[in-house]
This record gives sequence, C-alpha cells and structure tokens, in this order.
Amino acid sequence: MSKGIRYHQVGDKIDSYFLIKTATRGIASNGKPFLTLILGDHSGEIDAKLWGCSPDDEATFVSKSIVHLTGELGEYRGRNQLKLQSIRPTTAMDNVKLADFVRSAPLSPEDMLEQVTQYIFEMKNPNIQRITRHLLKKHQAAFLESPAATKNHHEFFSGLAYHVVSMLHISKSLSQLYPSLDTDLLYAGIILHDLGKVRELSGPIDTVYTLEGNLLGHITIMVNEIDEAAKELNIEGEEVLILQHMVLSHHGKGEWGSPKAPQIKEAELLHLIDNIDAKMNMLDRALERVQPGGFSERVMALDNRSFYKPSFHEPPLDL
Amino acid sequence: MSKGIRYHQVGDKIDSYFLIKTATRGIASNGKPFLTLILGDHSGEIDAKLWGCSPDDEATFVSKSIVHLTGELGEYRGRNQLKLQSIRPTTAMDNVKLADFVRSAPLSPEDMLEQVTQYIFEMKNPNIQRITRHLLKKHQAAFLESPAATKNHHEFFSGLAYHVVSMLHISKSLSQLYPSLDTDLLYAGIILHDLGKVRELSGPIDTVYTLEGNLLGHITIMVNEIDEAAKELNIEGEEVLILQHMVLSHHGKGEWGSPKAPQIKEAELLHLIDNIDAKMNMLDRALERVQPGGFSERVMALDNRSFYKPSFHEPPLDL
Amino acid sequence: MSKGIRYHQVGDKIDSYFLIKTATRGIASNGKPFLTLILGDHSGEIDAKLWGCSPDDEATFVSKSIVHLTGELGEYRGRNQLKLQSIRPTTAMDNVKLADFVRSAPLSPEDMLEQVTQYIFEMKNPNIQRITRHLLKKHQAAFLESPAATKNHHEFFSGLAYHVVSMLHISKSLSQLYPSLDTDLLYAGIILHDLGKVRELSGPIDTVYTLEGNLLGHITIMVNEIDEAAKELNIEGEEVLILQHMVLSHHGKGEWGSPKAPQIKEAELLHLIDNIDAKMNMLDRALERVQPGGFSERVMALDNRSFYKPSFHEPPLDL
Amino acid sequence: MSKGIRYHQVGDKIDSYFLIKTATRGIASNGKPFLTLILGDHSGEIDAKLWGCSPDDEATFVSKSIVHLTGELGEYRGRNQLKLQSIRPTTAMDNVKLADFVRSAPLSPEDMLEQVTQYIFEMKNPNIQRITRHLLKKHQAAFLESPAATKNHHEFFSGLAYHVVSMLHISKSLSQLYPSLDTDLLYAGIILHDLGKVRELSGPIDTVYTLEGNLLGHITIMVNEIDEAAKELNIEGEEVLILQHMVLSHHGKGEWGSPKAPQIKEAELLHLIDNIDAKMNMLDRALERVQPGGFSERVMALDNRSFYKPSFHEPPLDL
Amino acid sequence: MSKGIRYHQVGDKIDSYFLIKTATRGIASNGKPFLTLILGDHSGEIDAKLWGCSPDDEATFVSKSIVHLTGELGEYRGRNQLKLQSIRPTTAMDNVKLADFVRSAPLSPEDMLEQVTQYIFEMKNPNIQRITRHLLKKHQAAFLESPAATKNHHEFFSGLAYHVVSMLHISKSLSQLYPSLDTDLLYAGIILHDLGKVRELSGPIDTVYTLEGNLLGHITIMVNEIDEAAKELNIEGEEVLILQHMVLSHHGKGEWGSPKAPQIKEAELLHLIDNIDAKMNMLDRALERVQPGGFSERVMALDNRSFYKPSFHEPPLDL
Amino acid sequence: MSKGIRYHQVGDKIDSYFLIKTATRGIASNGKPFLTLILGDHSGEIDAKLWGCSPDDEATFVSKSIVHLTGELGEYRGRNQLKLQSIRPTTAMDNVKLADFVRSAPLSPEDMLEQVTQYIFEMKNPNIQRITRHLLKKHQAAFLESPAATKNHHEFFSGLAYHVVSMLHISKSLSQLYPSLDTDLLYAGIILHDLGKVRELSGPIDTVYTLEGNLLGHITIMVNEIDEAAKELNIEGEEVLILQHMVLSHHGKGEWGSPKAPQIKEAELLHLIDNIDAKMNMLDRALERVQPGGFSERVMALDNRSFYKPSFHEPPLDL
Repeated sequence: MSKGIRYHQVGDKIDSYFLIKTATRGIASNGKPFLTLILGDHSGEIDAKLWGCSPDDEATFVSKSIVHLTGELGEYRGRNQLKLQSIRPTTAMDNVKLADFVRSAPLSPEDMLEQVTQYIFEMKNPNIQRITRHLLKKHQAAFLESPAATKNHHEFFSGLAYHVVSMLHISKSLSQLYPSLDTDLLYAGIILHDLGKVRELSGPIDTVYTLEGNLLGHITIMVNEIDEAAKELNIEGEEVLILQHMVLSHHGKGEWGSPKAPQIKEAELLHLIDNIDAKMNMLDRALERVQPGGFSERVMALDNRSFYKPSFHEPPLDL
Repeated sequence: MSKGIRYHQVGDKIDSYFLIKTATRGIASNGKPFLTLILGDHSGEIDAKLWGCSPDDEATFVSKSIVHLTGELGEYRGRNQLKLQSIRPTTAMDNVKLADFVRSAPLSPEDMLEQVTQYIFEMKNPNIQRITRHLLKKHQAAFLESPAATKNHHEFFSGLAYHVVSMLHISKSLSQLYPSLDTDLLYAGIILHDLGKVRELSGPIDTVYTLEGNLLGHITIMVNEIDEAAKELNIEGEEVLILQHMVLSHHGKGEWGSPKAPQIKEAELLHLIDNIDAKMNMLDRALERVQPGGFSERVMALDNRSFYKPSFHEPPLDL
Repeated sequence: MSKGIRYHQVGDKIDSYFLIKTATRGIASNGKPFLTLILGDHSGEIDAKLWGCSPDDEATFVSKSIVHLTGELGEYRGRNQLKLQSIRPTTAMDNVKLADFVRSAPLSPEDMLEQVTQYIFEMKNPNIQRITRHLLKKHQAAFLESPAATKNHHEFFSGLAYHVVSMLHISKSLSQLYPSLDTDLLYAGIILHDLGKVRELSGPIDTVYTLEGNLLGHITIMVNEIDEAAKELNIEGEEVLILQHMVLSHHGKGEWGSPKAPQIKEAELLHLIDNIDAKMNMLDRALERVQPGGFSERVMALDNRSFYKPSFHEPPLDL
Repeated sequence: MSKGIRYHQVGDKIDSYFLIKTATRGIASNGKPFLTLILGDHSGEIDAKLWGCSPDDEATFVSKSIVHLTGELGEYRGRNQLKLQSIRPTTAMDNVKLADFVRSAPLSPEDMLEQVTQYIFEMKNPNIQRITRHLLKKHQAAFLESPAATKNHHEFFSGLAYHVVSMLHISKSLSQLYPSLDTDLLYAGIILHDLGKVRELSGPIDTVYTLEGNLLGHITIMVNEIDEAAKELNIEGEEVLILQHMVLSHHGKGEWGSPKAPQIKEAELLHLIDNIDAKMNMLDRALERVQPGGFSERVMALDNRSFYKPSFHEPPLDL
Repeated sequence: MSKGIRYHQVGDKIDSYFLIKTATRGIASNGKPFLTLILGDHSGEIDAKLWGCSPDDEATFVSKSIVHLTGELGEYRGRNQLKLQSIRPTTAMDNVKLADFVRSAPLSPEDMLEQVTQYIFEMKNPNIQRITRHLLKKHQAAFLESPAATKNHHEFFSGLAYHVVSMLHISKSLSQLYPSLDTDLLYAGIILHDLGKVRELSGPIDTVYTLEGNLLGHITIMVNEIDEAAKELNIEGEEVLILQHMVLSHHGKGEWGSPKAPQIKEAELLHLIDNIDAKMNMLDRALERVQPGGFSERVMALDNRSFYKPSFHEPPLDL
Repeated sequence: MSKGIRYHQVGDKIDSYFLIKTATRGIASNGKPFLTLILGDHSGEIDAKLWGCSPDDEATFVSKSIVHLTGELGEYRGRNQLKLQSIRPTTAMDNVKLADFVRSAPLSPEDMLEQVTQYIFEMKNPNIQRITRHLLKKHQAAFLESPAATKNHHEFFSGLAYHVVSMLHISKSLSQLYPSLDTDLLYAGIILHDLGKVRELSGPIDTVYTLEGNLLGHITIMVNEIDEAAKELNIEGEEVLILQHMVLSHHGKGEWGSPKAPQIKEAELLHLIDNIDAKMNMLDRALERVQPGGFSERVMALDNRSFYKPSFHEPPLDL
C-alpha cells in the first residue's frame, strides 16, 4: 500500500486509487457543471474538482465508488487540494476493495468477534448470557462494520467493535481489583451499550444520523430491543430490567442523554470505562502527529483543550 | 359526609371513619409496642398513636384498611395529632368504601373515560388511533385510578386521567388558534405521555416508585410499550416512531428526563401544555386556603416561590 | 400581487416593485462607489448591488423608499442575489404603498383593535379596565403597527397586536378550564405586557432598539407608565401594584429579564401563554417551507433545534 | 450603658432595660398561655419566656415596647435564654429611648445627612443635582433611619445612610485615580441606588418586606420615582434616563435582580463599589469576635465561606 | 476480635475495649458535668454519656486513649447509644493497640510500601524516579498512616496508601491497552498526586484540616514540594514542570480545585483513574450492608444517588 | 512624534518609523515568496505585505526590528492595510528606540518603582516586608517592563507595574475607610499577586504564554517563589502561609483559576480591587474613541457588553 494521501506534500505527483466519499455538483462561473469530490484512502481525505463534467461523469463518479486517479497535490486557500489529470472508474480487474480505503480499527473484524464471543462464553448467568448473545447475533454484521460515532472518537470502520473490545479488556482488569463486581452484568452492559448505533447511524461510509437516530437515539433503541429480545426468548427475571438500566444510564446523567443516572454499581462503572476509552482514543488521535515539545490542536470534545507532548517523549513515526 | 379532618380545630371531638394510610410499629420508652397511624379522609391526613397495641391490633390495623375512631384533636410539637379513645375495624355493615377516603379528581372515572374515548374517536389517522386505543384499553383500569405523581401536582385518585382530560381540552382550543396542528398526534401524545405511570407508581394509595419506575421511568416504559403495541397490531408506518418521540421528549430536555428534546411541533406543544396544566393545578392547591391579602406557603416545585392572593379577590370557601 | 421574491428560482426574470430596507454605500475594487440594497416585498428579502452609483442615486435610493426594478435572480457565494438591469423611484402614479411590502399579521389592524377593545369591555374591575383602556388609547397607533420583536417571533408589521390578540384568545379558553382565574387581570396583563415595545423599538421597518430600549427595556418602561397612568386617573387601589407586577414578572425570572418572578397566579399564567404563542409562531415560520420527511433549519431561539415534518403531513402550499 | 447582653455569660444576673422585638403567644403543655419574647439591647438579642401570662400581660408586652427586667442568663438546647424574675413596662420616668436599644451606624444621622448634602452640593450638572436633591428630601427622614437590608449587611438603624456615605467616600478616591469618571453621575447613582428601600422595607425595627417590596422591589420603585421626579421638576434631558439606568443596573445582572446589566462606565463602577462596601461590612461583622488564629462562622452571603484571622493580628476588644 | 459494635443489636450486653475518638464536656440539667464520648472499634462508632464525671475522669478519658467498658446497647432519639456500666483506662497489661480500633486498609503498610517501591523501581526516566523516590521517602511514615480524606472515600487508616496502590494497578493494566502511555509519568503522578494530604490533614485519628490544608490545600503543597525536591536533587529537566502539572491538574478543572485542567495525556488519565478508584470505594461502602433487592442510603458525593443491589446478587456476609 | 497610524485615514501618505511585531512568510499565487508584516507604533498596529521578498529581506525584516517606511494607507476586505513603497532597516543613526513603538503605561518605570518602593518602606511587619522586597528585587527588571496580560487589560509595556501602582493607591484609600485592614498584607498581596506573570508571559513585545505559563500559571509560580524566598531568608512565621494564600486566592474562585477562595479579609479585598482596576482600564480603552451619544464595540471580557457614552459627556480628544 502507498504511504497515503495524508503524508504527501504539496507538489507531489499522485497516481493511486481512492474512494469517493461524497460527490457534489456545482455550476462554475463559466456556466459549466463541475463535481466537487471528497476522496479518501486509508490515511485521510483530500478534495478535488472535476471541471466540465459530462452527464456520464456525474453518473459514474458517485459516492462510495472507487476510482483510479493521477494528478498533483496543490493548495487552495490554505487547504490541500488534488489537481486531477485523469480519473477512471475501477473494475474487478483493479482488485481493490472498500475496506482498504477507510480508516479502520487496528484489529480485524474476525478477531474482535472472537474476543467478544469469548467474553459472552464466560458469563455464568444464563439470562444475561442469552440476551447478549441473541442481540449480538441479530446485529452481528453491522456491529463489526459500524463506527462508534460520526466524529470525536472511534469514528472509523469497525470503531464500535473496537471500542467494545477495549472496554471489555479494561473491565476484566478492574474486576480483578474490585472483586465484588458482577462481570456478567459488566460485560453484557459493555457489549450492548452502544449496539443501538447500528440503527442510529447510517453505516461506516459518510456516516449520518438516521431518522430514528435523531428522534429516539441509540440508547432508547437498544432498551426497546432488550425488552423485545427477552420476550422472544421467554426470559422474565430481574436481569432484563437491570440490563435495560445499564444501557439507559450509560451516559451518566440527563444533560448527557441518560434519562436515569446509574443506580447500580456496574452501571456506574460502565459509564466510567466508556469515558476512559473514548478519551484515550481522542488523545491518541490528537497527539499522533505532534512533535515533542509541541501542542496539539484544540479538541472540542475535551473541553476545547490543547494537549502538550513533553519534549522528552518520542517523535511521531515518519511514514 | 362530615366536614373532614382538615377543617377541624384543636380540641374538637372526632367520631368518624378513616383510611389507615400507613401503620408503623415502634417501641415506647416503657418497652411496650405501639402503632403510629397515618389516617386519611377525603379532606386530608392526621397522625395518631395506638399505645400498648396487642399482636391482634398489629394484624388488624394495617395499611389500606378502613377503621372507625373516636377521639380528640390535639397537638404535639406544633403539629396536629389525634388522641384516640376508641378504634375498631369496619365491616360491610359500615357501608364505607375506599374512594370516600382519598382526595379524588373532581370528575368521575366514567365521565373521564367517556371524554378520552371521544377524543380517540375523532382521530383520522388509523395508525395513531389504533395504537392509542390499544394502549388505553390495556391499562384502562389503572389509568382511571392512578395519580399523576407522588407529590407536586395531580397527586390524587384519578389524578392521571384528570390531567389527561384537562390537557385534551386545552389542546383542542389551541388547535383552533393554530390550525396547522395535527390534532391526531397531539391527542395521542397527551393520552400516552404519562400512561407509563401506571407501571412507574405503585397505585393510588400510599404511592411510591416501583423498581422499574426507579430504574427506567415512565417515559422509557411507554416508549417500549408503543413499540410492542405496533408489533402486535402489525403497524409499520412512521407514526410509530413519531408517537414514541412524542412520549420520549415530553419533559422537554435532558435535565428534566427527556433524552431527546422535542423535534416536531406537536411534541413541543405537548410539553408546553403539560407544563401549564401541572402549574395551574399546583397554584390552585397552594392558594385554596389563603386569605385575600395573604401569601401562600412556598411551593418547592415552582422554584420555591410563595404566591400572593390580591386583596380584591374572593376569600376561600368556608367549609 | 406577484408571487413574491421568496418563491422565485435562480434564473427567473424579475420585474416588480420593492421596498428598500437598507442602503449601504461601499467602494468597489475599481475605486467607484456602489450601493448594497436590501430589498423586500411581502414575501421576503433579497440583496442587490447598484454598481457605479452617482451622487443622485445615493440620494434617491434610500431606506424606506419604494422602487421599481427589473433584473434576474442570481446567486453569489451560495446566497440568492438580484442582478439589477434597471431601477427607478416610484411616484404616486405607481399606486404602491408601504404596507404591501412588509410581512404583516394575517388580521387587519382594525379587526385586531376591535377584538382587543371587546376584551377590555368585558372587564368588571373598573380600576383595571380604566388603566388598560387609558394606556392602549395612549399608544394605539404605534401598538397597531409595531412588531413584537426585532427577530425570533412576531417580527412583522402589526406583530405586537397579533401576538396580543392570540394570547387573549388562549387566555379565554384557559379561564373556562380553570375557573378560579381572574380574567380581568389576565386580559389586562396580556394587553399591557409588551406595550412598552412601542418605545423600546424604533418602529415596523428596519427595526432597532432605541436608547431607552437599550438602557431600560420595555418592561421597566411600561411599569413606569402604569404608575403614571394611575396617578393621572386618580386610581389608588392594589390593582395598580398588581398590574405593575404582572408586567414586571412576565419574562419569568431574572436571567430572562424579569427582576421579580411571578408571585400571583395570573402572572405565572401570563408568562406561560406568552411562551406558547411565541413558540407556535416560531415553529410555524420554521416549518412553512419544509417538505414532509424533511428537517427545518436550526432555530436559535428554540435551543438551536431543528424540527422534523412527519412524512404523513401535508407538503407546503405551492405559491 | 451596661456592657450589653451579647457579652454576658450563662449564670450572670441581669437587671436591665430591653426592647421587645417580637412577642409571640403560645400554649404550654399545662394548657396555659405564655409569651415568647425576643428582647434586644444595643449589643444583641436574647430569648425569654413569660410563663402563665395574663390578658393584661399580652396587651402590655408587645413588639416595640421597652421593658425593665430582672433575671438570670440560662441555656436551653444549646442557646442562651433569659430566665425572667420580673418584668415591667417603662414610663417617661425611666428615661429610655428606642435608639438606645438597636444596633446603629457609627455616625449620627445628622453627620451623615451633612456629608451627603455636601456631595450633592458639589455636583455641576443641574439636572442630576436637582433630581437627587428632590428625592433625598422627599425621603429624608426614612433614609436616615432605614437599614440597608433585613440581613447580611448594614442591617441596622441608619444602615442605609451609612452604606451610602461609605460608598461616596470610596467613589471620591477612585475618581482621583480614574479622572475620566463623571462624579455627578456616580454620586447621584450612589445616593439613589438603594433609596427605594425606604418603601421596600418596613422600617428599622423587626424589618420585613412590604407588599410592594415583594412584588416590585426597591430597584423598580426608585426607577419609577426618578421618572416622576423629573416630571415634577420639568427636567427632560438624557440625564433622567441615565440615572434610571444607574439604579436599574446596580445589581449587575439578571440573576442578581437587575433587568439590564450596566451599560455606562459609572453604572459598572457603582455596582463594584456597592459590592466592596457590602463585603467589607460583612467581613468586619464576621470577624469582630474571632480570636487571632481562629476561623469565623460561615457567612452565607459570602459563598458560605469561613474566614481566618491571622495569628499575628490583634485580638478583639475586651468589652 | 469480637464482632464489633457495628454488628450489635439494641439490648446486647457490651464488654469490650474501645478507642475514645472525641470527649466533650457538658453540663446536665441537674447542674453536674458529664462527658459525651464518641467511641470506636474496628467496625464503627457509638456514642456514650459518662454522667456525673469527676475532674479525674475528665483528665483520664480523653481523645485517643483506649478504655475498657461494660454496658448495654440502647437507643436515644432513633440512634444507638451505649449505656455505660463501667469504664476504666487501659494499661500495658491490656495488650491493646491503636491500630486495632480504627478502620484500616485491607493491606498492611509494609505490603503497600513494597508495592509502591516496586513501581518506582520500574521507572526508566531517572529524573522522574529520583524526585518520586525522594518525596516518598521524606513523607514515608505519614504516607503509610494517612487517610485519603476526612470523609467520602478512603477515609481510614492507610487509606492514602491503599488508594495509591489501587491506582497503580489500574494504571498498569491500562498501559498495556494503550501502549503510547508514559508509565513513568503515570506512576509518579499517582504516587505524588495526593501526597500533600500528609500536610493537609491532621493524621489518621479524628481527622481535620490543618491551617495550611485550609489556606493552600494538598495540591499546592505538593507542587511546592516537587519544586523544592528538584532543587535539592539538582534536577533541571522539563520533567519537573510536567510532574508539577500532573499534580496541579489532577482534580480535572477549576471548580474541582485544579487551577489548570490536564494538558498532557497522562495527566488526563491520572484524573480519570483517581475518579474510578474513589467511586468504586464509595460504592463498595454504600452497598456493603444492603440486602439483594434493596437500595442503599443516598451517597452525597455521588450526586446524592441511592444504589440498588439486584435481587440476583449475593447478600452481605453475616458477621 | 507623528500623530500615529491609528489616527490616519485611508488615502494618507505614510513616511515614518515602525516596529515589526511579527513577520510571516507566505507564497503568492505567482509562486513567489512574500512577507506579511504586522507593524506597530505607539498608537496602534497596521498590516503590510512585502511582495517578492528576497532571502536578504527575510533575514532583515524580522520580528522586533525597527524599520523606516514610506507608503499609503489603503484598505483590503474592510481592514486598513499599508501599501509599501519603500522599506529599510534602521541604524543607530536613526536614533529610534523600542519603547517609542509600543503602547506604554502613562508613568515611567522609574516613577513606578519609586512608588512601589515607598509602599514597601511603609510596612511594619518585617517578615512581610522582607519577602516582598526580596521578590520584587529578584524580578525588578522584568516587573517594570511586563504587560499584565496578553489582551483584555493592561496589555501594554509596563502594564503590570502600572496595574500594581493603581491598586496600591486604591488600597490606601480604602484602608482609611476600613481601619481594621492590615495594610502590610494588603500592599504585599498587591505587589506579589501578578508578579508570576514575568515567568508566565514571554515579555512585552508579541506576548505569548511560556510553557510553564501554560502548565502551571502565574499564581502557582508565585506561590512557589514565596516558599523559596522564605527559605532563603530564613523566615518561618505564619506570614509566609498567609502571603501564599493571598496570591493563591486572588482570582476569587475555582472557575476563575484560584484553587482556594479568599479566606482572609485582605485576600477578599485584594480580589475586589484587582477586579475594579482591570474593569476601569478596559472601560477607558473601550470608550476612548466613542463619540457622546454612541455605543462602544462589545467588550468580550465584560460579558460581551457594549457601553454607552452619554450625550452630555465630552467627545474624545482630537489627535
């Protein structure tokens, strides 16, 4: 794989494959139509203009298609922009696939599924185990592809699964330190807490909120699904209510989207672990290209703070 | 009906029926058991002590039973207290019934049911109509008895139904002024918005929160039930989602218990009407015994304000 | 009347009358002066540039004059802009008048005055009636023309009167549902609550705050006027103080501009009705051109929310 | 003058004059009436019970009368209480007067009036000077007696005048440091800012809020009076509006009771000086009996803070 | 060791050793002095009155002495109280020691010291390691005894060390999951973050704030000490500043006591881990005596929430 | 001295000396390098572009050098911009010095130092006096040059010293009015409160935050220095702690950067005086070019308010 658009300099020649993320038609000052393309590879995104496009072009170069390009990296109003020399659609012959063109979790979907499955396997309470397994299975394909958000943290292919796997590992360590914790509840709460995002968000590419995402949100969606799953599985114990509460309360309080604050210990801890993993992910992103002795850009979701990389730390990898 | 305990003075002889609201066992300084009774009639509540009670007494004078008492109204540490002379359980012969001993809505359950039914009858959208009718029917008995809250407003027998009927009337007037309103949505939203309270609260006497009331709350409960009702009735239109949103958002914002703020016009209005009816009910309660030219006690749920009755207003009725 | 500038498409030819709302002089990059005109008709507003304007043009095309234009609707940086071909001032011969070029209330000033007068006529308390009538009469002309705000809600010709009339109708319905309400106070409070806006705002066209609007505000202005009116009319009862309190407290609390929160029932209700009418007006505006299944633009004054029009609702009228 | 009740110890014999601040009737457990008296001298307050009081006693020992007492200082539930041995009303023969029994400003009313008058005399703007002189004269007697509050700061006889005089002195020093200040405005704003308290509060003894104090507040009252004064004096300049704004904004912002925040420099400074004098007064009160090396009680109006007296400071005077 | 006062019932005979936590002299209604003792053993606290105490008693039964008692567990105003039959001071013969009478961490000071030392040993950055070792050594004795707070969490003997050890273990697990973390910084930050409490608090028994605890607080105290340590050790690298920032920012933001929010990744994580360990400790305390299916008392420091123990969890140990 | 760039009009010829505040290299659309210069004189700032600059130019026209320019005042996108005709570096022959090109305090550094020294001389407590003198002496040069902030108030050459001198004068007047004040503490607190800014900020030209400014802040820096100074001077009294507390608490509360709120009277007053001097300085700046009857621009640091200059006030000086 080439080093990726994010690491090129202005003036570099580009000859590579890209995913079209969005394609928007405009009218130039000479009255002719053009396309504004947002192109992505595994490393990042770049804008390009396809001037004087034909109706055919408009039908070919659409969102989510993969294209081959040549051109040069230029600059326009302080932002990088790719100046196209050629562009063509790809075919099976090109041997390229979607997953190569988006930022993805560092683990493969298969590995993550295996890990989550292992945690479910370790559960001892059959009611909790059956509901969790049922809902994971129901949404398995989407769960393995979905980002965890449209922005801020884990906003990449398989981001949701990666977030869940990280939280499961944290919760396992903590349960060794705090032995009174009910790991069945904790693991189930972690696996289910954001699973409603497979219905709240439109999918891994060009992610937006769905209508039910806007009007209900992933929390309410999943609380409903737990109810339904319990009915289908003929499960009636208090576990159903407790799992619903775990999901309902995981944002911590009303202002943050949870109509009930956590009222059981494992629900409080779920909220805290969610917070840690989200923040560590944001911080790693913010600092990944900062030199030692420098400050990152401001991170809106972290109270708009800027973060310092101590001068005795390692510089970022040169890619 | 006698004038009611709320309107007696210290020193009055009492010879009347009461409902035992709560009965709590204690041990007196002489080592003997006694019962602290909270007794209610249609007008209000009074404490009494049954000293030196036998095991029989403890088994007889329990919460929710109706008793006949004689005694005198006294005072203890600045609060009225009934000094018992005699107490006995009642039988069919006494010809007394529960509904006579609790504060109730000013309309009968039958009248209110008829009015709500009429509003459902007027709906034109069959999906909205069928879901609303289904859920009302499912919870009809509890709906007609339930208070709308444990305190603050409509905290009386049939309070929930009375709150709904009042809001329906307001919404009807407003829809004449703002003709773009969808009355189907508005009426359905009003009927369903607090219906989850039949599961959130323990019932009309000595009302407390149930476990699912604490951990999920009436909003989440009813959003789940709408989902379920739609599945049972094989209804799939966008109306299901919109009705869920109406209920979900009716507290207005996160801090007040709604994980989503209203995002459709009728949902916003539902929230505003709910607010008006609750506040008018609280204000009427706060002012009902205040003399013209005087201030009410502070009302916690109205930002702890005290309200003035202008001196040119009517005095309260002498009962 | 033509269909209005708001309903034209880019590319349409325009040949119509407009009101100049503001005219601002600038210097082009070629060193010549030009005018930026904000033009309005009954449907909305449009920008236009008058390039290379003469001193005569500057003296002619001033704010609040009506002009006749020809041109074409174009676009500049994503916003519509009118490209002028000709522009001329109008004379009596053109037979056009100001009121045709501004958004206005859907009722005529005469109708609204009659309705308000009827409400005053129904008052039983002579002190309240006389003060209200006196102040309405004093400011009648301005009251019938004034907008209710510079933006957000009822920001149009006669917006203030229309807001008052709507609130009076709501209060009448509510007083039937809550019979303990003092309608004299409520009606008077509604009529007077925003009347100070005739001094706070500069009038119906190109509305800005006056100096006393900035330094005192409409609430303080009207509280002063009630005092003065009572003195002129030799009225001394508690009604004067209560009316002042109604006006003073109608924004609900300190953060919203009321130095005292409502302390009488009718004052609290006045605040709530004001809120409902303002929000319904904003929502109707926000949704009037949204297609079913779509979201409105964000509404700043409604917590920056965007509102959804359900897909089973009617599309907007095609004008 | 004796050393005052505040400086006595439990067990001391008391033989002295007191002012009855409040007298409240109660019924003892033996069924007999008694009076709870709150008694004050220049140093502080003490409770006493007059057991088995006759109807005559009830008519004699009323609020604001001065009595002569003998008794002993005791303790009840951790608070000091005076055990009465004898109590009698006073007559002209006793040669006692009200002012000796209340905490008072350290300057005499006459001195303070002279100082305020001097500041008015120094004003150069005749409009500002005439309005200020007119309103001070109108309320002169009450101004010289009134406290500045019911609690927190300057809550004593002549507290209002003393607060004003202190603020005038501060403003004079500051105007030497910041020569662009308009001292006419600043002096007038200081003299008028709290003058509405003569109508907001019930007077110097047993101070409570009046009805107009509750419903309008001293700020609105004085803004009205400035308007009225200007009309009486036929003054029409912008000074009237500016003075009203000075008074209106002196609490700084909405949450603190000012519907408009300060928008002129002298109004901002008035707010800041008011703040300094109030806090210095509260701090002196809080620390006056604290030993070096000790902490004061918590002061509610200073964010509930407790203040430390450094161990190298002087101990309080031994009285 | 006996089962402890916390697990006794009213009516039980008591014959045991206790630590006097506080001893306060009072005067009974018969005029005689008495002592109110707060007595503690390893399980909890109990009040007792020593009536009619002699001057000798007052000199003997003082705070922090250990006594032997006989008596009976009674009740006074709804709280347990020990009725003394005999009380005597202890001598070396009794073979009792302070540490047996206070709640302590579940690990021994020696074990904890060894663990913390091991973490320091693992550090690779010599500047960080030397400063941390120096300050731990300087305060080692107090560090091993000090509570972490006066209330809320880890408010027991060795609570500070136990809190630190727990956080170190959490940080070690997390650093395996987030390999970009600088464990030297993280471990040092954890060891130092609350070390200033050895000067902020008065020690393990009857803990109160010292004067410098009140006026500066443990954060400022330790930031000063790091500065001083670096000077003594002649260390000048950026590590000194970074360590000071770690301690300074560990409360997360201004409202919570940190004048600077975390600006490096490890500082943010230190804050989050501190939060988790404090909350887990509070939750374990709150739930330790709650039966399955029951709610805990409200926990002030957790937003006044009450926590539920699911009915499928284990009951508390019977002691 | 010429009238200054701030008072020139578009079209004026410029022939004058300027300080280069910042010089930033860019690449023009023709591919050639250019410099964007921010130039300042004593009155304000202006942008200029040096097109087609040579490597020599880049080395010559650097930040903090003084240049001689000719050109014309133009406008670009609504902001003034200087169109360069010639530019040359200056030499000793030009006889210009830095201090002439920056806004400065109205008093000379020598005068201010003399005044501060006099206040120190008046102190009676030797511990307070010695620490204050020691720290002032240590930082004397930087203290006399440093601004008090990067923006908002006293953001000019010697701004810090001028702020301190003003506050000392205010405190002296106030101590005459409130004689219980400890002027030693107050003067010392004022002199030291912002002294840490000499390390927090980068100096008087093109001021930015230093790394320790960002990570610790001037408050923490100076609290550390007081500790160190006391050790060097072998001072051990409580004065050290109290002075640290004065500095630590002078921002008033946590949200404003003080981890401890003021807990001694002089610390509270220090905070209040700091507030007054900062606000008066901001207001004078905001109003200095406003005409009577006009409003200033909004001032972000004063709650984004705009301030009115009464029409009966003097117009600004014509320069």
